[in-house]
Amino acid sequence: MPTYKAPLRDMRFLINEVLDYPAHYAGLANGSEATPELVDAVLEGAATLCEEVLAPINLSGDREGCHFNAGEVTTPAGFKEAYRQFVDGGWQGLSFPTEYGGQGLPTSLSLFKTEMMGAANWSFNMYPGLSLGCINTLLRYATEAQKSLYLPSLVSGEWTGTMCLTEPQCGTDLAQVKTRAAPQPDGSYKLTGTKMFISAGEHDLAGNIVHIVLARLPDAPAGTRGISLFVVPKFLVAIDGSAGQRNTVSCGSIEHKMGIRGSATAVLNFDEATGHLIFEPNKGLEAMFTYMNTARIGIAIQGVAHAEASFQGALAYAKDRRSMRALSGKKEPEANADSLIWHADVRRMLLTQKAIAEGGRAMIYAAAQTADLMFNATLENDQTNYDRYDNELGFYTPILKGFLTEMGLEAANIGMQVFGGHGYIHEHGMEQIARDARISTLYEGTTGIQALDLLGRKVLIGTKGKCVREFTRLMLRLARANLFARGPTGTMARSIMKRAVEWNLLTLRIMLRAGKDRDLVGSASVDYLMYSGYVMMGYFLALQAEKAQTLLLNGKGSESADFYRAKIQTATFYFDRILPRADAHRSSALAPTHSLMQMDNASFAFL
Amino acid sequence: MPTYKAPLRDMRFLINEVLDYPAHYAGLANGSEATPELVDAVLEGAATLCEEVLAPINLSGDREGCHFNAGEVTTPAGFKEAYRQFVDGGWQGLSFPTEYGGQGLPTSLSLFKTEMMGAANWSFNMYPGLSLGCINTLLRYATEAQKSLYLPSLVSGEWTGTMCLTEPQCGTDLAQVKTRAAPQPDGSYKLTGTKMFISAGEHDLAGNIVHIVLARLPDAPAGTRGISLFVVPKFLVAIDGSAGQRNTVSCGSIEHKMGIRGSATAVLNFDEATGHLIFEPNKGLEAMFTYMNTARIGIAIQGVAHAEASFQGALAYAKDRRSMRALSGKKEPEANADSLIWHADVRRMLLTQKAIAEGGRAMIYAAAQTADLMFNATLENDQTNYDRYDNELGFYTPILKGFLTEMGLEAANIGMQVFGGHGYIHEHGMEQIARDARISTLYEGTTGIQALDLLGRKVLIGTKGKCVREFTRLMLRLARANLFARGPTGTMARSIMKRAVEWNLLTLRIMLRAGKDRDLVGSASVDYLMYSGYVMMGYFLALQAEKAQTLLLNGKGSESADFYRAKIQTATFYFDRILPRADAHRSSALAPTHSLMQMDNASFAFL
Repeated sequence: MPTYKAPLRDMRFLINEVLDYPAHYAGLANGSEATPELVDAVLEGAATLCEEVLAPINLSGDREGCHFNAGEVTTPAGFKEAYRQFVDGGWQGLSFPTEYGGQGLPTSLSLFKTEMMGAANWSFNMYPGLSLGCINTLLRYATEAQKSLYLPSLVSGEWTGTMCLTEPQCGTDLAQVKTRAAPQPDGSYKLTGTKMFISAGEHDLAGNIVHIVLARLPDAPAGTRGISLFVVPKFLVAIDGSAGQRNTVSCGSIEHKMGIRGSATAVLNFDEATGHLIFEPNKGLEAMFTYMNTARIGIAIQGVAHAEASFQGALAYAKDRRSMRALSGKKEPEANADSLIWHADVRRMLLTQKAIAEGGRAMIYAAAQTADLMFNATLENDQTNYDRYDNELGFYTPILKGFLTEMGLEAANIGMQVFGGHGYIHEHGMEQIARDARISTLYEGTTGIQALDLLGRKVLIGTKGKCVREFTRLMLRLARANLFARGPTGTMARSIMKRAVEWNLLTLRIMLRAGKDRDLVGSASVDYLMYSGYVMMGYFLALQAEKAQTLLLNGKGSESADFYRAKIQTATFYFDRILPRADAHRSSALAPTHSLMQMDNASFAFL
Repeated sequence: MPTYKAPLRDMRFLINEVLDYPAHYAGLANGSEATPELVDAVLEGAATLCEEVLAPINLSGDREGCHFNAGEVTTPAGFKEAYRQFVDGGWQGLSFPTEYGGQGLPTSLSLFKTEMMGAANWSFNMYPGLSLGCINTLLRYATEAQKSLYLPSLVSGEWTGTMCLTEPQCGTDLAQVKTRAAPQPDGSYKLTGTKMFISAGEHDLAGNIVHIVLARLPDAPAGTRGISLFVVPKFLVAIDGSAGQRNTVSCGSIEHKMGIRGSATAVLNFDEATGHLIFEPNKGLEAMFTYMNTARIGIAIQGVAHAEASFQGALAYAKDRRSMRALSGKKEPEANADSLIWHADVRRMLLTQKAIAEGGRAMIYAAAQTADLMFNATLENDQTNYDRYDNELGFYTPILKGFLTEMGLEAANIGMQVFGGHGYIHEHGMEQIARDARISTLYEGTTGIQALDLLGRKVLIGTKGKCVREFTRLMLRLARANLFARGPTGTMARSIMKRAVEWNLLTLRIMLRAGKDRDLVGSASVDYLMYSGYVMMGYFLALQAEKAQTLLLNGKGSESADFYRAKIQTATFYFDRILPRADAHRSSALAPTHSLMQMDNASFAFL
């Protein structure tokens, strides 16, 4: 079973050396507390929790799974104690306002922590993870009275929260939501309906569960414009904030899932359950969209977390297991065979995982700065900057969620592959990572949905390509600065320059054709998303390589010279062997829609 | 849960219309029985068995798994009865010699059957599947006395067989095999050692289990040239062929696996177990290699089987489930949303699965003809033709095994993706297909091993590129015949021509560089394999499209016009949207080895 170690050196490289987080934090209204010392303390504290508490119950949690009995859910052995430690450490409130008991630190710190928790034990991470969406929704849309009722216990972690959107007949297409909310004389509502796929919908970790529920008011318009948002606690909350009478929301069953088996996925039956409206009537979906970006970046992190965890497991095995001799001659003549890591193809697999983890992490950390700046604009009541960063984050989000989760699956599968047949065996933990990772391209909007969001909503309709032009400006800046450099950074710079131009041209070609062919966006979207992801990851790996090269040339941190060289080598690998895939996606994105649309529905199979 | 229907129309298209199996069978010494009527009867009989007996116990078999208790293994409910039906139907002996009770039909028929059995229930298929390797080994290498002792019961299916190669310290690297065989005065041997990952190593389906075991004689040379082959039955066999005294081989445990959970994977402890030498001493591995091709093609079929099964499940769901409206406008205005199949991206996913299943099936069926011809050469004592077809099959094998299993994983994962979150839930059966498929790139030689076999052994060392030149000759023949055709077949022909030239050039470039850079083969191998697979699949899809086009133009089978058109459309899709991936693999295969080899082992991680 892989032993998880938080990749603190890599994280600090991004935080301090590549993305200059100290300066970033210094510019934030809520950043003054986030000194380098405190950030280090947070990273190390989270690393300890993850390595010593969460990772050890990951495999056992998967094997045992959750238990359902007469409406009650028991989490796997050790989860309850671990959750207590999580709460006692104040981890839930890290980035939430001090007025509700949080530590008021920037959002990015919470995202750094999420990667470590997720890599150590994604199932466990789901419980506090779902609370984030619930807390963010309440923070933004609830009344002051509602906030003071729910937030202190949610921010402390004593209670957890959920997001109840999906119903049996609909997930993506929330226009089909049927759950009804009937107004009561006291201003409350009685909610009736069935919600499914509710992560953390029922469990034994917390004293109360606060559900955020999408439902329809009587006379609400059909479709997405008739959906409102409600808060429905498992236990009704007394005025003093204590959990009281059991509400009539009950767990009907939990799902038997491929993975994340330590995380309870509930069917919830609302049977005239008491709830309260939050935000304006019929504007529930609009409200949901506001926090969708952060929720989706939370899932994008899953790609990085599983890539890192699987890489660590595969690397350890590749150093330990001996098989055959390297084709270029014996490497360990004293042994009866060479370690796997000497074999070129094993190195290809390990480097693919490493590039995904390190490239993906940088993408997340860059987007996290945007998330911080967006929240900062809220604090400073600066609508212009808010919109600017909201757009920027809106561009990052589908690429990160869609692309990084797909790459996380690849990395997790590679981890199994390095283990050979042993990768298929439960005890080694590698197949669990692949199973746990598999959900990431499905929930919180499938890859197809991310792709439509990116190409349709963000690129074509929302900004007419401006978001691509803005991002590629960063690429061109990096490229120009290194265009004539010798060695790998120069090669990468020229590649980056070519890709920056190509990405804009691809966008333009699709934009021009989309007007004439309404099937084009759906037909090109996933390939466009993957193309964008590969190019963006290339940029962030080149950025790291360039910084490493500068630090090497300046003779800084000579004890880190091997580390810096590895950054350049990882990026070189990526440009040589992974980035060419962008060409295939570009080619497919530009293929005629005809090749997808011409087949009659009845002709797909003749059985 | 997907309802499996054998794709008989597709199979018959290949058999009768594309690959002219009737003529092929007519030319075989053992083919006269294989009349079109008989082939049809075999296909339909197998389809019934698979649809009505094997498919219904697939999901339940996965959920229940195998039970291990004090050395005994119980298979999931229904497996025993299903196996009885399999035996009673005479399915095990389909392609084995009549003198041992088989039906003496060509090998290809057995491969057609394997796809259906595997798609319906791969775990079940493992039990009779492992017998094939055992039977083939005995047929080729055992003494007449040994044959008459074991083969009748194995061919009837009353007994099953295994192949015991892997040990805890080695799988791929059989040079490390430690199991010892001590000669006894009576000419038998006592085998001592531990074998693991033994599929069908212990179970309750058959009266006896005949193990083929790799072990070392005393004084055997170290490494691969000191390994001999033994037959070690679970129950010692009396002279009348009945199973008698229990041998000292015992099942120590069975593995907890990601998938194929209805298939028992045993650790076998040989404790001075009685065995008999087959073939010459120290030539065990050589003997193994003879049947490796057919065994590996058996696993290549897994890619096609899972692609087909997952496609059928996804297609049914895509027609049934409604979500959103098609981007080009409402397709089913009377409903509250359009079926998934109207969405371009869903069609992209379905067509990818369909192309993999149909392209892969054609690759298998073509290789199956070569396998038939090779066996025919044995029957006719024609060493020249034997070598020719052996080489041809040797070229097909790593491409089919390596590429089709990787594509099978992709297809299975796509099947889950079409289902959205529901794909992750056990009851729908889609995640099981993905888990079952996942073993296919690991066992019987990982993809990396297939790639080394292809590029190193078959292409560079074995034939200096001749095998590629010979295969591309078929491509050029098809291309030339359609080069100036209008419409899709002409477009494909020109693409095929370009790829044929490019494949040879790629091979040549690698060959030239490999002499100077000993890391090149390992560094390029998997990308070369994938490139070869994509191009070969392109050829076989174009071949089907061309045949369909001809049949359409000739006005033949007008009731099949939609079917033929779909063949052309599937191939068009593949050439537009899947084949471009070959470029990325070509590019990676030609990348400097430096980008894989330069990183110090210690620099892969700084944890």
